[in-house]
Amino acid sequence: MDHKGRQQRLRSALPVHRLDALLVTHLPNILYLCGFSGSAGVLVLTEAKSVFFTDGRYIAQARSEVQGAHIFIRRKAPLAAASDWLATHSRKKTGALPFRAGIEGEHLLVAARNRLAANLPSNIRLREAPNLVERARMVKDAREIQRIRAAVLLGAGLFERALEVIRPGVKETQVAAEMEYAAREAGAEAMSFPTIIASGKRSALPHGRASRSTVPARGFVVCDFGVILTDYCSDMTRTVSVGRPSSGERRAYQAVKEAQQAAVDAVRPGISVSEVDRAARKSLQNSSLAKYFTHSTGHGVGLEIHEAPRVGAGQTEILQPGMVITIEPGVYLPDRWGVRIEDMVVVTERGCEVLTPTSKELIEI
Amino acid sequence: MDHKGRQQRLRSALPVHRLDALLVTHLPNILYLCGFSGSAGVLVLTEAKSVFFTDGRYIAQARSEVQGAHIFIRRKAPLAAASDWLATHSRKKTGALPFRAGIEGEHLLVAARNRLAANLPSNIRLREAPNLVERARMVKDAREIQRIRAAVLLGAGLFERALEVIRPGVKETQVAAEMEYAAREAGAEAMSFPTIIASGKRSALPHGRASRSTVPARGFVVCDFGVILTDYCSDMTRTVSVGRPSSGERRAYQAVKEAQQAAVDAVRPGISVSEVDRAARKSLQNSSLAKYFTHSTGHGVGLEIHEAPRVGAGQTEILQPGMVITIEPGVYLPDRWGVRIEDMVVVTERGCEVLTPTSKELIEI
Repeated sequence: MDHKGRQQRLRSALPVHRLDALLVTHLPNILYLCGFSGSAGVLVLTEAKSVFFTDGRYIAQARSEVQGAHIFIRRKAPLAAASDWLATHSRKKTGALPFRAGIEGEHLLVAARNRLAANLPSNIRLREAPNLVERARMVKDAREIQRIRAAVLLGAGLFERALEVIRPGVKETQVAAEMEYAAREAGAEAMSFPTIIASGKRSALPHGRASRSTVPARGFVVCDFGVILTDYCSDMTRTVSVGRPSSGERRAYQAVKEAQQAAVDAVRPGISVSEVDRAARKSLQNSSLAKYFTHSTGHGVGLEIHEAPRVGAGQTEILQPGMVITIEPGVYLPDRWGVRIEDMVVVTERGCEVLTPTSKELIEI
Repeated sequence: MDHKGRQQRLRSALPVHRLDALLVTHLPNILYLCGFSGSAGVLVLTEAKSVFFTDGRYIAQARSEVQGAHIFIRRKAPLAAASDWLATHSRKKTGALPFRAGIEGEHLLVAARNRLAANLPSNIRLREAPNLVERARMVKDAREIQRIRAAVLLGAGLFERALEVIRPGVKETQVAAEMEYAAREAGAEAMSFPTIIASGKRSALPHGRASRSTVPARGFVVCDFGVILTDYCSDMTRTVSVGRPSSGERRAYQAVKEAQQAAVDAVRPGISVSEVDRAARKSLQNSSLAKYFTHSTGHGVGLEIHEAPRVGAGQTEILQPGMVITIEPGVYLPDRWGVRIEDMVVVTERGCEVLTPTSKELIEI
């Protein structure tokens, strides 16, 4: 991965944002920028250099992973170590202006910010920086897309296993267990989020994690799952029917499938994410199911399972080639049933490519 | 669970801390106080009442789970909805004093705090509240201990599975996969953290998540794992030897085992957690391994895998009956090997009870 280039681009953008330094504390941002995958570290960028702070537990890991940044191993917490360094470094700034250190407001806790501020000399001003790293991360390069593609394919394979296991009377957790076992067998590092297996009435819960409920003799089963493979996440949803669906259920399934396709068809560079969301909602209006579509159409996926951009109403982000997003409309009739269908797509020069290879025809088990 | 009592005790403590309201945003704290297990919600406590905010995705779940609080379903983000409510409610406060709303500084992000502040009328002052909910959560009641006990027993069963699977040549991820499958089979909701299987030289990494490395023909394998069962976490570590350990390895194992026992023996109400940490370190000095013990002795466990109190040097928390902590000293010789042994214990009226039932004798595979 082009860690040095990523740091360099960000460092040269600091003056534009009137920042003398950026304190990167969000671990996925640190991984993206310098390759460190441990759980304690702070990366500080200035226009001239990158410095990385971690503690004694990560000596070997930092030395083998960190690219393009000077490594400091300190006994104190990395953020405190970074603030010591900033205090010294900021004195080099000439003139009477304060030294402006950007923090990641969407990731730094209020208490951590206050401890940091208390530790800094008065010439340093903390400012909430714009989401510079998240914005860089939105557009994936070829190697990232390659990794995402591999994660998506591995993830899609788990659905085959689910189809073998889903039967009336089987516990939802049993289905999840078989899928997670298959994921490990196939080399996944972990699931990218707690596996959702929501059967029968539970399919009406958009976030119905696999429970000890058993799959009923008839009804939908929503399967929403993903893996992490070489740091990158996958995410997909398929809804299957155990037994024959009613005509209403069948119509709803078709409506969601069409809405999903309408949103996929809308994806292309230059349009805003809200237009993609609107395409799905508009399609659902044809069957008066739009009011049961109670969440956003999708989200970015990469090093994190949920990352920018959010694909929802009111969001203004413009799609660019290389962005990877989910398209996942769903309808949920409380206490009755729910349907969701989700693919991952990558924005291309002229439209998009659906990464998820799995059929969206309704499967009856 | 006694959700109403928990809320009531906290509400009546607000005036002591000079707070007119407390905004609870940390999800495990919300679960503890009102039973809501979803991923979007804010609980606001005032001296007189409890109000809970969530969005349309959680209508059914909020109605079935939330105890002791009035439920508001809002289209906007729960924190924005809560701030609207606070703006109206705060006008009822008589006199010229500002309305003081406490936030959870250790859990609320800087950006969320700033959005909240921008949304509030000038009569409301945000203050970083002390960790009131975390402190309440430290001492478990009988039903919580019952649940933790069940999670610990389920977790301990996974070690039996690990012993069947660990062999020279098997991948660490395969060991983890078998354990995680057994956990699901036994009814666990999830693992409480990514399973650590660190074999051979990797055993010297205190946080060596299962990797695609294979277990070598000879050396230690550190197995650190836990489950979530009915919301409560378990956590345990055992280190086994593949092949015959060298005399140095055997001595180190015995030293860690003795240090672990010394720390367990130190646990009793009225002493500070740092004394427990000191007992482990002092024991390791007998074999000059103390300098290789590079982390804290333990941490609280409950709804979260890491919660208060931290059992480490310089920590001042005093043990009380009902606290549940881990005791997990370890020694790590970089690039050679590591050993860690971890039990969960509950503080009793006169000492402690070790919850983890598994033998700590060195097992050779």
